[in-house]
Order: sequence, then structure tokens, then C-alpha cells
Amino acid sequence: MNRKPEAPPTDARLSASDSSGFGPPEFDTDIRPAGEHEWTATLSDRWNAFGGVVNGGYLLAVALTALRAEMPFPAPLAASAYFLRPGAPGPARLRTEIARVGRRLATGEARLHQDGGEVLRVLASFVDPGRSRGPTVVGARMPDLPDPELCADLGDLGDATIARRVEYRYPQRPGWVAGEPSGVPRAEFWMAFADGREVDSFGLALLVDAAAPVVLDVGARASATAELTVHLRDRPAPGWLACRASTRFLIDGYHEEDFEIWDRTGRFVAQGRQLARVSG
Amino acid sequence: MNRKPEAPPTDARLSASDSSGFGPPEFDTDIRPAGEHEWTATLSDRWNAFGGVVNGGYLLAVALTALRAEMPFPAPLAASAYFLRPGAPGPARLRTEIARVGRRLATGEARLHQDGGEVLRVLASFVDPGRSRGPTVVGARMPDLPDPELCADLGDLGDATIARRVEYRYPQRPGWVAGEPSGVPRAEFWMAFADGREVDSFGLALLVDAAAPVVLDVGARASATAELTVHLRDRPAPGWLACRASTRFLIDGYHEEDFEIWDRTGRFVAQGRQLARVSG
Repeated sequence: MNRKPEAPPTDARLSASDSSGFGPPEFDTDIRPAGEHEWTATLSDRWNAFGGVVNGGYLLAVALTALRAEMPFPAPLAASAYFLRPGAPGPARLRTEIARVGRRLATGEARLHQDGGEVLRVLASFVDPGRSRGPTVVGARMPDLPDPELCADLGDLGDATIARRVEYRYPQRPGWVAGEPSGVPRAEFWMAFADGREVDSFGLALLVDAAAPVVLDVGARASATAELTVHLRDRPAPGWLACRASTRFLIDGYHEEDFEIWDRTGRFVAQGRQLARVSG
Repeated sequence: MNRKPEAPPTDARLSASDSSGFGPPEFDTDIRPAGEHEWTATLSDRWNAFGGVVNGGYLLAVALTALRAEMPFPAPLAASAYFLRPGAPGPARLRTEIARVGRRLATGEARLHQDGGEVLRVLASFVDPGRSRGPTVVGARMPDLPDPELCADLGDLGDATIARRVEYRYPQRPGWVAGEPSGVPRAEFWMAFADGREVDSFGLALLVDAAAPVVLDVGARASATAELTVHLRDRPAPGWLACRASTRFLIDGYHEEDFEIWDRTGRFVAQGRQLARVSG
């Protein structure tokens, strides 16, 4: 059974998005001003990871969206999120603060609270992407993937509702999907928003944490992110995004996960690294 | 002329350190309580990078040392530093805050101010290193380096006083040292504190930002760190540390630098990634 019969994965659909510019996307979240440097938000249940907890990348995108409204520059360049408690669908409050506005970078902080306490604290620097000047030397290549149309999706992922918001296309389904971990905590695959929305910096911040952790392929049942830092280097061209995820250091249950995102034209657009702890 | 005739680089010296446990090191800095969650510090001029600005890793180590005094767990596991202004040798004030104390992780924030304004803001999570349990799978190998005694130091680095506090040993001197950049922004080399002090988690947080940036080998004259995140995974065995630094994405003047530190027994102990901007 196909879990998304209503959304065939064609590039025509993906490029028909009406998103534009570096403006904040909605991510199905209503963020409203609620006083000076204060915001209210409703966390959607549409971006849940396994176990019904709200996905960390979605929480980060919500926090950056609130922070952006205070910033003199529109595009997040670097953001570090510390996850303090699991987030739950429902109401949340955010508090934002500007730490420093410089000539090129503006840096601020956002804190996201729910009734149980503080869920997330984020530091982030924003830039004006039109103003960056300097040398370019890229010493890596995008993943060499078959066309998305020739790749497999992940099938039904149960309570992970994020898998209905994000399309995944793997050259071969990872071993863990069928309960047979490959033993190799690496993966290359395509991602895109299922509704065809174009991906901006905020979308990238979500997507670096939107795939299943590659430690599932060394037998972990789940992984909880403690810290996630993203570098948002460019705005992707419309269409599928080529992704590369790897874990090299699972030590005493803690592991990093490195994540790269390239657009379909071969441009490197984002990089994430997180520190997480496996369970199961 | 050897810049450090007083400190021959032998392992005997390095293992003669009197440092012990996960306690905070001094780093030549006097940190004193100055009220609730307030601290004063004197930033030393002994850890300057090129240009007479205080090294970012040293600033991070100072901030973590203050934060540690508030934390129920002794060892930093992950820390993210946002550099807001250049730090200058001299007096500084720190303000620390606990964000959340959980069962396994305690997370806090530190802000370092000088007269010109806020210099550094840090988020960090601490753990009790004895309590970590879980699987270990390491999919990378330590740099394959000749013995430190067979390697070259960097010679005189002028106003970068940090090069008198830290010993560097390269299999071959990087091209940039002689004004002939190799074109390859990667390096593998040894590091150790010049005074023989053993390296704990706080020392590792300093050392991930203590080497010359590898973008010097693609023609950059300097690089200013905007954000630095470190993962402190284990306490190193005494002696030289094997390091691997690389930049893969220099784009419009901004670049990441990835940094790995392994101890001499082949154990992976720390990983850093920063986002920085080149000049020159």
C-alpha cells in the first residue's frame, strides 16, 4: 500500500511551489507575536518522529522562524539547537533575543517552552545572502544517485507523521526497514517536501534532521538528539535534494550524525551535525 | 631559531603532567565568583591567534570552566560557541545559567563580556562520563602519522602566542608556512600542550580551534570563526594527540572546518566543526 497516493513524486510537482524569497515558511505552525520578544506557536502533530514526539528539525525551524522576525538580516547561516525535553504537539511559547548585530552577521537566541518546561534553546547567526563575497573552493561531490523515479520510498513508517510531509527516495531501501540492519551507518538518498513546497533556509534546517538516523542500520531502535548544528550555505534550486548521512563515531551509546544536502544542480546547500544517544 | 628551546617535545615530558580527573584546568586564567551566576576572569595574552586577538578555543575553554562550576555533571559533552566580537587580553565578565538538569545531561549557557560588549555566547551540555552505557561502533581510523619526533614544527608564528603554548608536529610543513599554499585544505598532524599538561575535556575544547586554519593552504591569509561546535567524547590518554583538519566547502568566503582529535592509543576523543569567514 502506498502511503501517499495523492502525491506522485514528479519534478513538475516539486517546481510548482508558490514559495518565494528568503521569507519564513509556515510549516503548518501558527506563530504570533505575544509581546516584546515573545511569541506563541502551535506545534503541529504533522511532523512527529517515531514515538509521537515532535521532530527536532521542525522545532528548530519554528524557533528560527520566530527569531527571523527580529533579525535585520533574513537568512540563517548557522544555528545550534540544544534539545532539553521532548516536544509535544500543542501550544508553545517562544522568547527571542538579539545578542549582537554586526556588519555582516546578526546573532540571536530563541527559547521554546511548553507547559512541562523549556524544550529547546537555539543560538543562530543570520546574514544577508546577497552580500557574501569571497573565494569558492569546493572539495566534495554530490551523492551519485539514480533518478528519484528509479528509487524506493520507505513504505509506511507508522506514527512518524513526518514521513507523510517529507518524501524519501533511496537507491535501495535501507536494511533496517525490513528489520535487517546492514551494519553500515551511512546512506545517500533524495528528499523533498511532499506537498511540493520549495525549500528555503528554514526548510533546510528542518530537513537536516528529517531522515531516519543511520544508526538504525547498526541495530539501534531509535536515537534522541541532544544537540544539532546546521550550516545553511545556499538556497537550493527547486526539486529533489540529494542527501548524504553518516555516523562514524558511536561510542558508549552516543553518536554524531553528519548530514549534507545538495540541490539537484549539484550545488552544496546545507550541512548538519548532531550529537544523539541511541536507545534499543 | 627555535621558538621553544626550553621545551623539548618528548613523550616523557608530556606524561609527567600533574593534571588529574575531569576538573577544570587553569589555562592561565583567573576565574573568580562575583555574585550569583557571575564571574570575573582575566583573559591571558598567552593564547592569542594571529593579529593579537584571543583564540576562540581558549575563550570557549574559559566559558566552559565557569559553566562547569554550576553544573551537576563534571564533563562537557557538547558545546556551541557563537563569537560576537573579537576578544582582547584583559578583564572579562561571565554570566552563567542552567537551562535544564536531566537524568543524563545538564545543559547551560555562558556569556562572556568585555568592555566593548558581549564577546561570546555558549550553549553546552555536561555529563557524568562514568555513567555512559551503550554500544560502540567506530567507522574511522586515526591519522597515520610518523612519530612526532620525526615531524616538523611550524617555526616562528609571530604574534600568534598560542603557538608557544601548543606544540604542533607536521609530517611536512604545510605549504602556507613558506608562502606556497598547497591548494589542498586538509592536514594531519600532532598537537600537545607545550608545558606538558595533560589534556582533559576543557583542553580538548581549546585544541579543536588551536591549529592554523587549513584554508591558509588555498590562499586565505586569515579566517575568523563565527560558530564553533565541539563534541567531547572521551578523555585522552597522556601524550601527543593525532589531529585531522579539513575544509570541503569554501563558498563565497565562508567555510566549515572539521577537526578530529585522537589520542596516541588510537581512541577518538573529540570532534569540532566551525563556520568561519576568510580574509585576505
